Amino acid sequence: MKAAIAGASGYAGGELLRLLLAHPGIQIGALTAGSSAGTTLGEHQPHLPALADRIIEPTGPDTLSGHDVVFLALPHGASAAIAAQLGQDTLIVDCGADFRLSSEADWTEFYGGPHAGTWPYGLPELPGQRDVLANAKRIAVPGCYPTSVTLGLFPAFAAGLVEPDVVVVAASGTSGAGRSLKASLLGSEVMGSVSAYGVGGTHRHTPEMTQNLSAVAGQPVRVSFTPTLAPMARGILATCSAPATPGLTKARLREAYQEALKDEPFTHLLPEGRWPATAMTLGANTAVLQVALDERAGRVIVVVAIDNLTKGTAGGAIQSANLALGLPEELGLPTTGVSP
Amino acid sequence: MKAAIAGASGYAGGELLRLLLAHPGIQIGALTAGSSAGTTLGEHQPHLPALADRIIEPTGPDTLSGHDVVFLALPHGASAAIAAQLGQDTLIVDCGADFRLSSEADWTEFYGGPHAGTWPYGLPELPGQRDVLANAKRIAVPGCYPTSVTLGLFPAFAAGLVEPDVVVVAASGTSGAGRSLKASLLGSEVMGSVSAYGVGGTHRHTPEMTQNLSAVAGQPVRVSFTPTLAPMARGILATCSAPATPGLTKARLREAYQEALKDEPFTHLLPEGRWPATAMTLGANTAVLQVALDERAGRVIVVVAIDNLTKGTAGGAIQSANLALGLPEELGLPTTGVSP
Amino acid sequence: MKAAIAGASGYAGGELLRLLLAHPGIQIGALTAGSSAGTTLGEHQPHLPALADRIIEPTGPDTLSGHDVVFLALPHGASAAIAAQLGQDTLIVDCGADFRLSSEADWTEFYGGPHAGTWPYGLPELPGQRDVLANAKRIAVPGCYPTSVTLGLFPAFAAGLVEPDVVVVAASGTSGAGRSLKASLLGSEVMGSVSAYGVGGTHRHTPEMTQNLSAVAGQPVRVSFTPTLAPMARGILATCSAPATPGLTKARLREAYQEALKDEPFTHLLPEGRWPATAMTLGANTAVLQVALDERAGRVIVVVAIDNLTKGTAGGAIQSANLALGLPEELGLPTTGVSP
Amino acid sequence: MKAAIAGASGYAGGELLRLLLAHPGIQIGALTAGSSAGTTLGEHQPHLPALADRIIEPTGPDTLSGHDVVFLALPHGASAAIAAQLGQDTLIVDCGADFRLSSEADWTEFYGGPHAGTWPYGLPELPGQRDVLANAKRIAVPGCYPTSVTLGLFPAFAAGLVEPDVVVVAASGTSGAGRSLKASLLGSEVMGSVSAYGVGGTHRHTPEMTQNLSAVAGQPVRVSFTPTLAPMARGILATCSAPATPGLTKARLREAYQEALKDEPFTHLLPEGRWPATAMTLGANTAVLQVALDERAGRVIVVVAIDNLTKGTAGGAIQSANLALGLPEELGLPTTGVSP
Repeated sequence: MKAAIAGASGYAGGELLRLLLAHPGIQIGALTAGSSAGTTLGEHQPHLPALADRIIEPTGPDTLSGHDVVFLALPHGASAAIAAQLGQDTLIVDCGADFRLSSEADWTEFYGGPHAGTWPYGLPELPGQRDVLANAKRIAVPGCYPTSVTLGLFPAFAAGLVEPDVVVVAASGTSGAGRSLKASLLGSEVMGSVSAYGVGGTHRHTPEMTQNLSAVAGQPVRVSFTPTLAPMARGILATCSAPATPGLTKARLREAYQEALKDEPFTHLLPEGRWPATAMTLGANTAVLQVALDERAGRVIVVVAIDNLTKGTAGGAIQSANLALGLPEELGLPTTGVSP
Repeated sequence: MKAAIAGASGYAGGELLRLLLAHPGIQIGALTAGSSAGTTLGEHQPHLPALADRIIEPTGPDTLSGHDVVFLALPHGASAAIAAQLGQDTLIVDCGADFRLSSEADWTEFYGGPHAGTWPYGLPELPGQRDVLANAKRIAVPGCYPTSVTLGLFPAFAAGLVEPDVVVVAASGTSGAGRSLKASLLGSEVMGSVSAYGVGGTHRHTPEMTQNLSAVAGQPVRVSFTPTLAPMARGILATCSAPATPGLTKARLREAYQEALKDEPFTHLLPEGRWPATAMTLGANTAVLQVALDERAGRVIVVVAIDNLTKGTAGGAIQSANLALGLPEELGLPTTGVSP
Repeated sequence: MKAAIAGASGYAGGELLRLLLAHPGIQIGALTAGSSAGTTLGEHQPHLPALADRIIEPTGPDTLSGHDVVFLALPHGASAAIAAQLGQDTLIVDCGADFRLSSEADWTEFYGGPHAGTWPYGLPELPGQRDVLANAKRIAVPGCYPTSVTLGLFPAFAAGLVEPDVVVVAASGTSGAGRSLKASLLGSEVMGSVSAYGVGGTHRHTPEMTQNLSAVAGQPVRVSFTPTLAPMARGILATCSAPATPGLTKARLREAYQEALKDEPFTHLLPEGRWPATAMTLGANTAVLQVALDERAGRVIVVVAIDNLTKGTAGGAIQSANLALGLPEELGLPTTGVSP
Repeated sequence: MKAAIAGASGYAGGELLRLLLAHPGIQIGALTAGSSAGTTLGEHQPHLPALADRIIEPTGPDTLSGHDVVFLALPHGASAAIAAQLGQDTLIVDCGADFRLSSEADWTEFYGGPHAGTWPYGLPELPGQRDVLANAKRIAVPGCYPTSVTLGLFPAFAAGLVEPDVVVVAASGTSGAGRSLKASLLGSEVMGSVSAYGVGGTHRHTPEMTQNLSAVAGQPVRVSFTPTLAPMARGILATCSAPATPGLTKARLREAYQEALKDEPFTHLLPEGRWPATAMTLGANTAVLQVALDERAGRVIVVVAIDNLTKGTAGGAIQSANLALGLPEELGLPTTGVSP
């Protein structure tokens, strides 16, 4: 199998390349980008010496065609036009948001502009989703925050253990914002500081969480989501909670999570008494979870750690691509973090 | 006025000294500690060259007596015995937890051991609290997390804008854990990682938040509190939310906060559209806040940033001590952060 | 005394304002900037709530005139034109490089363009320099790296203890690069990473070090200088070494430093056995030093820590301005760091 | 092939396990430790979920025998006794210092206690060393700093381009100090701060650098080495310099490095104009280098970045073990860093 990567000079593109360099079933084909076309990859991704001398080509049908799979790591709004030019036989895996939401109203409200459509959603852990992905030629990779929150709460909703009134506060590393040149992302501003942004339900990942959890719950789920920026390059720690249904016990809660996750290759429910840290997942395609029942407050609390660039973007993309290409789902995907 | 500092070799003690060195109304008297007695302060607080050669004395009535105010920055459980030996005329300001909780049941459940009692609570911003502190000879300095959460939510509860069902997720810098030698606090473990701890309502600061907010609300308030550890030395960012009461508007919410905080010297409500970052408060006695109404989720969200060692401990202690000593409340307390 | 700050929206400008807010002898007058003119200071310096609502004015003779002292924190090349418009009675303190170098050849080689001239050099610790500054109406504030290196090595050269062949490797926090929007300064790139830049004698601060040390040594001094970028917002740790002159003993070396620094208010020679850390100086106008004699390698090693924005820029500027304004040199300048 | 890891609960042990989990030619056998024996590996290495339930056994001949290779990641002084019990047919790879130095005098001066002896030195890049390692049953893995400095300077000494008078200043991440519980290694102390330690030629890695470089140079080389601690968990950036021999040109210098490194799988000489950052090597077995000739100062400057735990310890250990086991040298060793 041969893969093209569009957006090879960005953080998501770099992570796709890092993982594909160690993937035994997928070869790296064309590397493309927009304004970086014509430069070497080494200028942008100096941690990938094996590809340092590769020249980045312009993103377009000429450079992207002729591959079994095309990974798109592009700004929002760019994927539809490219996909239209690539033909139905090529697997297209979009790391952007364009095809994640099924509700046109949500799309318009949170992203603006015309809704491009909806592609099969690349979160294999969702009930029934592996079958959908096995036959897909188009895949919408979930957002990084929705990946963490959906993995954290779907077992509780699937088992009917919580009320549909979710509060999420998540800390993300700065790579989640990409390589954009904003003063608020300068090292001088982010080091030594945790800050809030997109407060009050305005973050674009909010409707995606609502969509996923409502589908599992079989009823509308309200989500209050507050993202925060933490002084680290990678990682998401999502603290998710919802009111416990009456009579829920700690044993029942834990059992539900064990049951729901027991065959999952990329989730790791910690032993009781230990709590996730993003460092456990650095560079790994793993989501590390723990659950608690706060009986005094009447809430179930789930904490989830992922690497936003791996399980949250590029690793998740390859996991779904493996399924769609008929490869073993786990192929080429590390479950081992780099720590300390 | 002359102050003694018990626990001068720790982080809270160091911050007390940093602030008192610039305080025009309080002189630094005895510096005491436990196992560090006999060493110079410079070995423990190399950022305070003006005191580098001062010898730390043992903590006890001999060394602490003869001061107008004694600041205790000691492990839990040590304050009562010392206070008993110091006489009723000396102002004692306890940065520890011993005298914060009025409920003996809460004390026993969360701290264990006998309840030492309850002292006037050192949060001047709480309605009516300045009068209490003006005549106090004993002050219990609030915990760092409860400081941030109480400042963030008391205006909403005082104005009846939220239901008594609070969810707090807060990120703290590592200095909140003191200078304890634990592997989980090593730089190698905390850098590049956000982690959860004390999940499920087990953190000791939970009943203190409940106590404060219930008093303001005039009814029992439930608090689900999840602390997380962020890769920074100082700072707390607390994201607090509660269901909005029916009919609440954004204008009414903002107005309530403006009204409640308009005369406060140490709170800073940001202009609309901007959000707190802990860097705004580094080394300052300021709490920086912002509020939002998430109409879709039906919740009020308040984000508060403080420096856990300044407004959250030593600065708050001096603010209350100023009141009790008859000094201007703001004396010697910076509102200016060190940034970037 | 009343001060105007040109470049108030940048890091150096913000640090000047932070210090001047606590300065009892200088009031803050006009705040000016280039592209930020017309916005509030709070948008750029949210850590300074006392000035949050001040409107930034355009930089020019209209806004800057009528002050006793004007601090310029501008890009290179902008200071001469402004100074020419401000009259000889106004003290002008330039935090930029324009007037630091006496050699036109050095200026041309390292900065390019015409040499603006040479102003009195704002490093009061240099022998004889306090007299120069006491009568100055124009002051060139040293660069941050040269401040650290000159303070570290002038005692050795003044006492003839080292050969004129210096090697300096220094680590700087990212604020040294200002608020420039470069990908290499993004948090994602700098966190968790130390990198080199300007290697091989190409950094612009190199000739300034050579100039200062040669003047003290009374002979040409060669300097090999390598700057590195460390994952912190503030601070410089400079490791400086030079061959020891024959027969030098540890006792003689230490004595020379004690003697040279004994009356200096802003240097702190650590006790033997302890070594500088930048955290000791965060936000303080202090340089913390230590010296060693490596007899096997035949070199004197001096390690110096400063805060690049305080002693390295804004604090140093105010220290020199105090002298030129006839104020006590130490007025308004903290020697206490913010730590941990 | 089957490997035992002694010291599995530490940082070096964890890195060995991370790499071996992805090594196609070596299986993981016994995991042993001292005080951690009897606990699960997951308590100490939560980033390795695949081994989370493995019980750590006590370190001793019973647990370590029966393996093709035994990796020792133990405190200094413990390796000799264990090696004596394991027989001559087992490959023993010691990540500690016990067998690195050939000079008993150096050992005694820098480490104290009896000199255990000298084992083949595990740096395959040194001229002739691959042959030595191909037949070795005992390997002394180099120290992390000496790895970086030796790789950086051996080409210059081998080609006779520099004088034997080296100055090295290196920044290391905190994991280089292991998981030791010292206040100076707490996150609160190291974040936001660069500090010096072991100044003046006292660091134990100094004689190892001298030994390596003198061997290549064919004459005694003096090394002035200053280590510094940087606020990051992993990585070493070593800035090495030495006087250029007369007449050296930039072209000749670069050519010598290209020639010396052209067939090396684990070194990466950057294109001209770009400089190493430790982030380029995070988790990779790669050393990234760049060279410069500072004609004014008359020095060659080489900057080297490695991951202290990978190329600097565990990766280097496996690289040498591959050679000694008759496996391809590169087997199982990533050259791709995790970035950003």
